[in-house]
Amino acid sequence: MSQRIHNFGAGPGVLPEPVLRQAQQDLWDIGGSGIGIMEHSHRGKLFDRVLGEAEALCREVGGIPANYKVLFLQGGASLQFSMVPMNLLPAGRTADYVVTGVWSQKALKEAKLLGQTHVAFDGAGEQFVRIPRQEEIRYSDHPVYVHVTTNNTIYGTQWPEEPAVPAGVPMIADTSSDMYSRPIDIAKYGLIYAGAQKNLGPSGAVLVIIREDLIELAPKSLPTMLQYRVHAAEHSLYNTPNTWGIYFTGQVFKWIRDQGGLAAMAALNEAKAKLLYDAIDASGFYRGTAEPGSRSRMNVTFRGPSEELEAKFCSEATRSGLDGLKGHRSVGGMRASIYNACPLASVQALVDFMKEFERKNG
Amino acid sequence: MSQRIHNFGAGPGVLPEPVLRQAQQDLWDIGGSGIGIMEHSHRGKLFDRVLGEAEALCREVGGIPANYKVLFLQGGASLQFSMVPMNLLPAGRTADYVVTGVWSQKALKEAKLLGQTHVAFDGAGEQFVRIPRQEEIRYSDHPVYVHVTTNNTIYGTQWPEEPAVPAGVPMIADTSSDMYSRPIDIAKYGLIYAGAQKNLGPSGAVLVIIREDLIELAPKSLPTMLQYRVHAAEHSLYNTPNTWGIYFTGQVFKWIRDQGGLAAMAALNEAKAKLLYDAIDASGFYRGTAEPGSRSRMNVTFRGPSEELEAKFCSEATRSGLDGLKGHRSVGGMRASIYNACPLASVQALVDFMKEFERKNG
Repeated sequence: MSQRIHNFGAGPGVLPEPVLRQAQQDLWDIGGSGIGIMEHSHRGKLFDRVLGEAEALCREVGGIPANYKVLFLQGGASLQFSMVPMNLLPAGRTADYVVTGVWSQKALKEAKLLGQTHVAFDGAGEQFVRIPRQEEIRYSDHPVYVHVTTNNTIYGTQWPEEPAVPAGVPMIADTSSDMYSRPIDIAKYGLIYAGAQKNLGPSGAVLVIIREDLIELAPKSLPTMLQYRVHAAEHSLYNTPNTWGIYFTGQVFKWIRDQGGLAAMAALNEAKAKLLYDAIDASGFYRGTAEPGSRSRMNVTFRGPSEELEAKFCSEATRSGLDGLKGHRSVGGMRASIYNACPLASVQALVDFMKEFERKNG
Repeated sequence: MSQRIHNFGAGPGVLPEPVLRQAQQDLWDIGGSGIGIMEHSHRGKLFDRVLGEAEALCREVGGIPANYKVLFLQGGASLQFSMVPMNLLPAGRTADYVVTGVWSQKALKEAKLLGQTHVAFDGAGEQFVRIPRQEEIRYSDHPVYVHVTTNNTIYGTQWPEEPAVPAGVPMIADTSSDMYSRPIDIAKYGLIYAGAQKNLGPSGAVLVIIREDLIELAPKSLPTMLQYRVHAAEHSLYNTPNTWGIYFTGQVFKWIRDQGGLAAMAALNEAKAKLLYDAIDASGFYRGTAEPGSRSRMNVTFRGPSEELEAKFCSEATRSGLDGLKGHRSVGGMRASIYNACPLASVQALVDFMKEFERKNG
């Protein structure tokens, strides 16, 4: 029945198979209602339950404190790049950005259109091969917030732990590519946002977790859809939300819980990453591109001996049922994205392929 | 296998069953790729084809002229309420709004936050029971655009045909609840937007059709995600789009084409509406709420002899497998939404139920 292949795509990426199976059923008829999940009113009892469960599971899995709101929004992380400064960066204040890759740069660019910013660290000069050490981050005086990108898909880097920020200053994090891949101490953040399409569900769904004291800071003259206060007050139902995205994300939260929660996810993700990095490091053929202390457990980036062999690697891998391994066009090489739903067996298949490819071409 | 019931919900509403069946398959593995539609990269060849087909089918079905762009966006019609004036209403100019219901009011409210507006007609004083006659619409001098809502879900009214607007002034239309339910002369409009969740697909997906000369009018200081020029230049791939929404909407366009296109849709929708309005008009028990000349072929609103009997009607209908018939809380009574995907058989079942209910309670 399953003719599915190994999917190492950077996102939208592989989703948990039990969730896909359930979704196939619920698309036609959910809970014996005689109506598919996408055909239910967002104001009806069934969807109320779906939304309530998605939020409750999100809270349970992440250990979200009571003074944080969970919002299900739209527009991807890219719209959050603007909503964050629109809501939280008033005139006369400065927002600090720690720039660790292209997505941090894009977040910074949108903030600059709206207010005053300060670059607390910029890794561009080193091609973003690493996460900064604490002492390299230079905050401005009294920033209104500090923005970080927790995982950098293109360069294969990830913060080993959150940076320290000045006392009382909220940390805002784009966690799109490592959300719920390991335990997270929500209380360290003022606002977390994540496009769903790596670890949480379908593209188009966006999760925002916001501390209550930040909700009411937006000017009321902002467009209604761009105010966190509106979505918080209306429990993500100000307008018709992406009901499918909320349903599916809720099912993924349930799957994470049933796997043993974030600790189990972290253990699995560590095991997958170790298998792959060990294979790279043990080889004289492949080499990792990120600094070892900054390596991502989500996106493993590596090079081969030549661009020709890299191209051959990717095309032979595809023919062997290992898809999505081409590195981002801006850096080249290979990238294996091994998000939560990527099984250990897929990583083992990749490592086996790598060894065989090296044997034949080394 | 099917235990599906009759769904008259106002949206998200019923979807075409053949499309749901295909989507169940494609969720797991699309086109023999070994990867489900939601797990494919938005930059990959397969999704390129999905997006290209969705656009081509949208153009074919709607007869969209070459000087219009088709955009697949997010955030619902509600975000368009703001994007339209952000992009098209410069300082010093006035935008005219024809207010025929709550959704027009909301569009107007967002425009007022951003610039100068003029109300060319306001049906609120008559509880929005009708569409204005041409001579009742009073445009301002040289409006930058005229905004209309083509169908009003809550009040069960619909423009029988587009109003005339001053020469050279683009008409902007929220067509969320009647898009592609009948032939549409795109050339009469400057910009059309529609949330997908009534006639086109899942909530969260938004279709925008924009005439090329309007694309570049936005100030470049607007947030990138809120500029039509960016989405047009990037073919709806500036950031990760709602890939599932685009896939599904494309499948619905194909279904509409295979049914015989918009002329066939209009004939079916006319037949369904006639069946229902005739039953209402022939009865001394039910009465329609919209003025006959303004009646919607999408949302048929009607009252019973008393609020008690209306409540009884809705609960007995639900028990008989006829769902979603309660009128909007702001107007009461009953509402049958009979969008494209609602089969004639569902409307026949409703009419039969109505007659039986009248016989027992009349």
